[in-house]
Amino acid sequence: MSAENTFRCVTCTAPVNIAVIKYWGKRDEKLILPTNSSLSVTLGQDELRAKTSVAVSKDYTQDRMWLNGKEQSVNTPRIQNVLKETRKRLSDSQNETELLQNVHIVSENNFPTAAGLASSAAGYACLVYSLSQLYGVKGEISDIARLLLSCRQGSGSACRSIYGGFVAWNMGELEDGSDSYAVQVAPEAHWPEMRTLILVVNDQKKDVGSTEGMQTTIETSDLMKHRVTIMDRRMEAMTEAIKKRDFPTFGKLTMQDSNQLHAVCLDTYPPIFYMTDVSRQVIRLVHAINDIYEEVKVAYTFDAGPNACLYLLEEDVPRVLSLVQHFFPPSQDKGEKFVTGLSVPEVPVCSKDVSKISLQQNPGAIKYIIHTKVGPGPQVLTDPDESLFTADGKPKL
Amino acid sequence: MSAENTFRCVTCTAPVNIAVIKYWGKRDEKLILPTNSSLSVTLGQDELRAKTSVAVSKDYTQDRMWLNGKEQSVNTPRIQNVLKETRKRLSDSQNETELLQNVHIVSENNFPTAAGLASSAAGYACLVYSLSQLYGVKGEISDIARLLLSCRQGSGSACRSIYGGFVAWNMGELEDGSDSYAVQVAPEAHWPEMRTLILVVNDQKKDVGSTEGMQTTIETSDLMKHRVTIMDRRMEAMTEAIKKRDFPTFGKLTMQDSNQLHAVCLDTYPPIFYMTDVSRQVIRLVHAINDIYEEVKVAYTFDAGPNACLYLLEEDVPRVLSLVQHFFPPSQDKGEKFVTGLSVPEVPVCSKDVSKISLQQNPGAIKYIIHTKVGPGPQVLTDPDESLFTADGKPKL
Repeated sequence: MSAENTFRCVTCTAPVNIAVIKYWGKRDEKLILPTNSSLSVTLGQDELRAKTSVAVSKDYTQDRMWLNGKEQSVNTPRIQNVLKETRKRLSDSQNETELLQNVHIVSENNFPTAAGLASSAAGYACLVYSLSQLYGVKGEISDIARLLLSCRQGSGSACRSIYGGFVAWNMGELEDGSDSYAVQVAPEAHWPEMRTLILVVNDQKKDVGSTEGMQTTIETSDLMKHRVTIMDRRMEAMTEAIKKRDFPTFGKLTMQDSNQLHAVCLDTYPPIFYMTDVSRQVIRLVHAINDIYEEVKVAYTFDAGPNACLYLLEEDVPRVLSLVQHFFPPSQDKGEKFVTGLSVPEVPVCSKDVSKISLQQNPGAIKYIIHTKVGPGPQVLTDPDESLFTADGKPKL
Repeated sequence: MSAENTFRCVTCTAPVNIAVIKYWGKRDEKLILPTNSSLSVTLGQDELRAKTSVAVSKDYTQDRMWLNGKEQSVNTPRIQNVLKETRKRLSDSQNETELLQNVHIVSENNFPTAAGLASSAAGYACLVYSLSQLYGVKGEISDIARLLLSCRQGSGSACRSIYGGFVAWNMGELEDGSDSYAVQVAPEAHWPEMRTLILVVNDQKKDVGSTEGMQTTIETSDLMKHRVTIMDRRMEAMTEAIKKRDFPTFGKLTMQDSNQLHAVCLDTYPPIFYMTDVSRQVIRLVHAINDIYEEVKVAYTFDAGPNACLYLLEEDVPRVLSLVQHFFPPSQDKGEKFVTGLSVPEVPVCSKDVSKISLQQNPGAIKYIIHTKVGPGPQVLTDPDESLFTADGKPKL
């Protein structure tokens, strides 16, 4: 294949987002609309990002896709939906012949998928963003990412990874869903001290896929019916806390909303569990640390798995991290680095703090810790070395 | 001390009750009234009972109490309340001089308190019943047991142990609480096939006393506000299921109510956890068994601890027990009997059943199993050998 003339490629990255006000399920399967609005923090891409290269070529005989080095079928409803919707929005300036060409997609994450870190949201946001760049789509694209909701296995929260900083996904009111998309509440520079510690728990197994779990909750949980009625109030309170950079309020709301999400999971029939005994130990540790500070200085949130995501301010990272490492030390045979990501001054754990916390040490329960901060939205990478395609249009595998 | 003439003693037993519609907290601390009605099953006393001997004597120089062999202070609000209230209701026929005499109380359980099996409800019900027998109190006494609610550490659910069979504790409407007491929904003979398996989980620690936890839930859980609004409906549905001996409905409601109780605990700030990873494995096993039967044949419920109480019908005990023992075998060094209580035909576990259940075996996670059935209310024991006092009025320790 002579690639020079026939092959055009775009490479982009997209971030992971972790919700502080949680989305859980669709209020109507046909309308493809969420039960409630949600709000998330976009994380730094140096630590956590999906990277996707998309290319069109007249030499491609069919649409194809490679994910983390392995070819996957493109014939899934979510991929097909994204392709169809993006092509539909092709800008006028675009060469129409390219539209008829097949697309090849290569995507990878810079973190293990098995870590259960909302990798699919980053991946799908990256796909949507890369395709929109390739085809020159203008205007709002988070609604394309939201369309993933329409698929049984799709993660609607991908739409929040289209923006950096603090991002709201408004549930919308219109029946066609056209007012249900993501908006930026505040850019990453608004609260530069905000930090995140992701505690990746060992030995995690997911018993229920989150999409399946969500709809069972909507159908069977009495408490969920009540939860949706208080979400507007929560969204307002959280938005205000972010705008005012009021950490104690931000942190308390984050913890309450995570707990309530898992409470409605438990109220589902049959019940759904994502947190484990280790998750609960992390929760106890966080409340014990806040008790020592006599103020909310660190907050946890849990998604559809046992990993904890802790939010805290830069100045509190060394002390909190020393306590986390004290109670959850790495297992003895640990060769890899235990704390990855942003560097942080190491401080010895304060024995007075430790003596106030009635919790047993649990070596090896946490596999590793990722230290990151609030980051920007998807990026276009212009350096050809960053492309996941070789110069002649083949995937680098 | 010459006991023959001066010492009068009554010995009674009282049962444990396990709620299928759960009580959690007071709607008003001053009015001493529960947030919602609750409904429980009274268990057989051969397996689980409190036994209390109470005596009055002119030779006793002060009120005294011994609990499981150890002297305890009687100067607690709950003991004082019960003594005061019982003496107030002294029947006319009673010798008034005895009322001025001090009382000695000796109480013990036939099961370990540490098992976390609502031992305090049985113990307090037994105390109230024994004192009412001693003093010849006539009429309703479950409201005396309910008075224990007025104490910070009191367990109001003691009032349900005053009756056998299936027992409702109506929340009442009157401000003075006089219409908040226990009533029997059906006697134990109404549904003689009903059986209970109590799975006592190893290594249990309670982090929050349940009384403290309850009031925090009332104060901080948004979902609890909603829960109380649906409880009348649940009580009606459960009462009807019991009256009709409709096990699938009884079982499903029992599981849903247990899960919802623990959901509002999780929605509390800070959150309260009683179930552990082992509790959750039991829940998964129960749902998997019901999936095999294609009907609810066994139901779980959890109180303020990780132990599971399973309800099921006599005919299903052998098969269910074989599966429980397969997935939760005793640890190797187990000397004691693993399944205690009512005898049950041993059947080999069905390998076809096992193959359908995707759960790992967890040896030693369950310490032992108590097999019991629905039982009667408190009993008076007339055999002097049963007394916990020696013939001269001293506690047998």
